[in-house]
Amino acid sequence: MTVETLESHRCFGGTVSICRHQSAATGTPMRFSIFVPEGKGPFPTVTFLAGLTCTEENFTVKAGAYGKAAELGLAIIAPDTSPRGSGVADDPAYDLGQGAGFYIDATEKPWAPHFAMESYIARDLPAAVRDNFPVDGKRQSITGHSMGGHGALTLALKYPDHYHSVSAFAPIVSPTRCPWGEKAFTAYLGADRSSWAAHDASALMMSGSAVGHFDDILIDQGLDDSFLEKELKPELFEDACATHRQKLTLRRHAGYDHSYYFIQSFIGEHLEFHARHLA
Amino acid sequence: MTVETLESHRCFGGTVSICRHQSAATGTPMRFSIFVPEGKGPFPTVTFLAGLTCTEENFTVKAGAYGKAAELGLAIIAPDTSPRGSGVADDPAYDLGQGAGFYIDATEKPWAPHFAMESYIARDLPAAVRDNFPVDGKRQSITGHSMGGHGALTLALKYPDHYHSVSAFAPIVSPTRCPWGEKAFTAYLGADRSSWAAHDASALMMSGSAVGHFDDILIDQGLDDSFLEKELKPELFEDACATHRQKLTLRRHAGYDHSYYFIQSFIGEHLEFHARHLA
Repeated sequence: MTVETLESHRCFGGTVSICRHQSAATGTPMRFSIFVPEGKGPFPTVTFLAGLTCTEENFTVKAGAYGKAAELGLAIIAPDTSPRGSGVADDPAYDLGQGAGFYIDATEKPWAPHFAMESYIARDLPAAVRDNFPVDGKRQSITGHSMGGHGALTLALKYPDHYHSVSAFAPIVSPTRCPWGEKAFTAYLGADRSSWAAHDASALMMSGSAVGHFDDILIDQGLDDSFLEKELKPELFEDACATHRQKLTLRRHAGYDHSYYFIQSFIGEHLEFHARHLA
Repeated sequence: MTVETLESHRCFGGTVSICRHQSAATGTPMRFSIFVPEGKGPFPTVTFLAGLTCTEENFTVKAGAYGKAAELGLAIIAPDTSPRGSGVADDPAYDLGQGAGFYIDATEKPWAPHFAMESYIARDLPAAVRDNFPVDGKRQSITGHSMGGHGALTLALKYPDHYHSVSAFAPIVSPTRCPWGEKAFTAYLGADRSSWAAHDASALMMSGSAVGHFDDILIDQGLDDSFLEKELKPELFEDACATHRQKLTLRRHAGYDHSYYFIQSFIGEHLEFHARHLA
């Protein structure tokens, strides 16, 4: 699978590259960034899924993660959040369409032909990375923020054999029970809610998906996050984990908000968590 | 001196704030960011001066410096690079006018009334910070990148009693001998070059300014920096330091470019360097 490197920068002895490749799932060119540490590898990978409005750039530029990744010998992949381009459906709202792919495969028009972010993240992206960078495709972990926290949790629960560990920052833990998720799922999956639960981390956990696979799940949540009560609702995932005795380390942090200042404060501990599971 | 906080975010236990205040030197509102670690202080400060086109945001968002600053108990101040606004002179080029203040006080029209970045950084900014944040105004160090590296070196050599230590990333070390500097100095100081040397770090060092004050000066320079040969020329400062036996730790790094990926790779070591001198 051909990957074009648009730019690359030396960073902490390794290399940060911004790449573009054609995805069969989305039928579009897709962008991602990848940090590869110094050395021969093959390196285990941590994929970071970003939130609403983001591209591959936000984490890459703002998270301050590469020093710790270099220290731990982790490659870090940060994909875009949706297909993009003039031939791709869009919506003027920030929380639907381009920049808001929700890491699911849309079944409804006009989204279905290109909005296939679940297949992209689960299949096309890792294949492209494996074919072009010195990574160990058998040692993957996943994390994400907000909409990307939803993506990380649901992908881990849908494809547990793909991932050694999963964590999230301020995730949407139950998109079927919050305005962001209800709007996106109605558009991408249709008004019939019967198909929605398969893409809801709390519903997946409550149904017993992947029970016994992950020895721990790490979630950090800021208590000054303006989306906490209406959109994020970590207690719903906490309840579902408790039901199945899934160990969950859910840390609530006084004073932290929804920004990358929150993410950069805890990304080092998330990478250490994943490095332990990938070792 | 009144400072308005436009936004603030908890980060590594401390707080990052974006602030605005009226500067007597520039006669305009000026913006800066400040990271203050957790605790009572008073904290020593490191001021980071950014390069061409930057605002107070670039370092704040991209440098990944606050984890190390929190660990070392340092406050970090990152000001804007020029006065701004519709009443302030400007030029369509990226390397003159707004975003390109060069940390000097302009004497020529149309720049002179507002472009007074030397007085702003040396006087107004520290006073505003001292009056509003728990910092120790007697313990200051300074660093910067590119045009801001020129700013850090020249301010340290002009006002050695203000600063315990100085460092720089890919600095313009001799603006009187490179296109960026010649263009800006011609505009801001006039075509008569006799006034220029007082604002050129290599010329200041060659003339013996501040000799004996700084036990070491730290400069990092990437060898894949596309501005290295034409604009930056670290060898000119190296020669001037050698002339006066000023200790200079000039590290040339293979593969690194002019970006914040370079800065983030070494900012931790710069903060450790300053923390040792501020202790």
